[in-house]
Amino acid sequence: MSEFHLKEYIQKRKQLVDEHLDRLLPQPEGPSGKVVEAMRYSISAGGKRVRPILMMAACEAVGGDFSTILPAACAMECVHTYSLIHDDLPAMDDDDLRRGKPTCHKVFGEAIAILAGDGLLTYAFELMTHPELTSYVGGRILNQAISIFAKAAGVAGMVGGQTADILFEDKPVDAQTLAYIHRHKTGALIRASVEMGALLGGGTPEQVERLSNYGTALGLAFQVVDDLLDVIGDEKKLGKPVGSDEKNKKATYPALFGIEETRKRAQDLKMEALDALSGFGSEAEPLRAIAIYVVERDR
Amino acid sequence: MSEFHLKEYIQKRKQLVDEHLDRLLPQPEGPSGKVVEAMRYSISAGGKRVRPILMMAACEAVGGDFSTILPAACAMECVHTYSLIHDDLPAMDDDDLRRGKPTCHKVFGEAIAILAGDGLLTYAFELMTHPELTSYVGGRILNQAISIFAKAAGVAGMVGGQTADILFEDKPVDAQTLAYIHRHKTGALIRASVEMGALLGGGTPEQVERLSNYGTALGLAFQVVDDLLDVIGDEKKLGKPVGSDEKNKKATYPALFGIEETRKRAQDLKMEALDALSGFGSEAEPLRAIAIYVVERDR
Repeated sequence: MSEFHLKEYIQKRKQLVDEHLDRLLPQPEGPSGKVVEAMRYSISAGGKRVRPILMMAACEAVGGDFSTILPAACAMECVHTYSLIHDDLPAMDDDDLRRGKPTCHKVFGEAIAILAGDGLLTYAFELMTHPELTSYVGGRILNQAISIFAKAAGVAGMVGGQTADILFEDKPVDAQTLAYIHRHKTGALIRASVEMGALLGGGTPEQVERLSNYGTALGLAFQVVDDLLDVIGDEKKLGKPVGSDEKNKKATYPALFGIEETRKRAQDLKMEALDALSGFGSEAEPLRAIAIYVVERDR
Repeated sequence: MSEFHLKEYIQKRKQLVDEHLDRLLPQPEGPSGKVVEAMRYSISAGGKRVRPILMMAACEAVGGDFSTILPAACAMECVHTYSLIHDDLPAMDDDDLRRGKPTCHKVFGEAIAILAGDGLLTYAFELMTHPELTSYVGGRILNQAISIFAKAAGVAGMVGGQTADILFEDKPVDAQTLAYIHRHKTGALIRASVEMGALLGGGTPEQVERLSNYGTALGLAFQVVDDLLDVIGDEKKLGKPVGSDEKNKKATYPALFGIEETRKRAQDLKMEALDALSGFGSEAEPLRAIAIYVVERDR
């Protein structure tokens, strides 16, 4: 699959996710309409839908029909978006802009932004039991997927990573802590997206485990390359200034290991991800192309 | 069942819930231990465990074994506690004390308090798929219970009620809006507790519906009597000052309808709750005693 095809594939899937998010989210009405407005504002603020696309691609890789798991894919985007809303709050990272647009609390105020995050996190679990999902997926499998989801999003996953990130702000971070933060803050949801897609698509336990390994490697590769691009990237291509990690005294792989070692680590992670897919056929082409793209990209 | 027995019943059940919360919550360890500490701090800050006790009582009322649904009962308390942590935040109600103890953000800071709330909300859904629950309850029934739970906690329930409560702060509130806030902010979780207990305990759809009606009436009765006690209650018995609603310009039933009409409303709601239990046998005695206590209490 050439890069051209991957772009087209991602664009189509992104559009599908966008349409279904718009369809599946509640409508702003009644005395609490404002919080739904805020949820919809952040959901439609230009996300790339990486996690839902990965979930659907993992579903395909085990021979499943990705169109049957759209509520779960949308649920994953709800959790990702809630995490951004809460991360941006004044008490957390205190960001006024995200992807060039005012953050949720800048538009709706802090109270509604907190509630919009809470609402999206809760709605994710409502979507996980949506009739469109329960009509295709068995009850036990759905229970398992919900369990994977909650663990990856909670203190053993994303919330734990965000906690560590905040506690180590402005403090020296060693390699072990940096790995902990990445594995939990961003890695956990990426791995869970792939695992859930495989499970909901009818994958065998062995297939789910292999794709889980793929997800772990991919999540880490994504972060390592992000760190690298912040040092050696082209501002024009990235669309954002480089060197911000160093300026913000953020612990990164290049800072800890040097550029060459970080490049090597990214290549190793790509091979790990591709190795995990070795038993899969052409249905796993999208996952392969994504792993290559994540490491070879220049933006 | 005399009041003495109800007290003993509630005390025993509360102790059981406390023990299992302590056992089932994660342990504070690793780089994110602080957030688990904060979660445990708020969970053990003196809650009465009303919702878990109601869930177990509803389970018993349909002939179920309440000891098999303890993870779900604890999950309900996690969601209730998360809602208190986020409600107390400076951007929301800005409370320094709850039940006489410093609120979560006063002890751990705002960022960790936001994350502790997020962590508890997410952990609730992890508990809903805990092996101790899935080994007793069928996959489909569990999916249904999770769906009821998420709807009651989210924008169509508690989060919606809290949104309306915040948006109508310092504004005149009519009877319809007051009912909306109560039905959503506190009523939704109480109703869901009873519904989930009935469903997880193996109740028929008709039993679940009847207990849902019980829960709706009980939740509203609880709020109506709370409003009433703030006007006519005895400060010594209540252990808190009366008249605070009027001082805070809070919309209440007595303010809108007068004391006599509010008393009558409380009695009507008690009868509604008891009527809903008419088809049940002695297994529903705890639920009956709770409905009578909620309306007749003087604290």
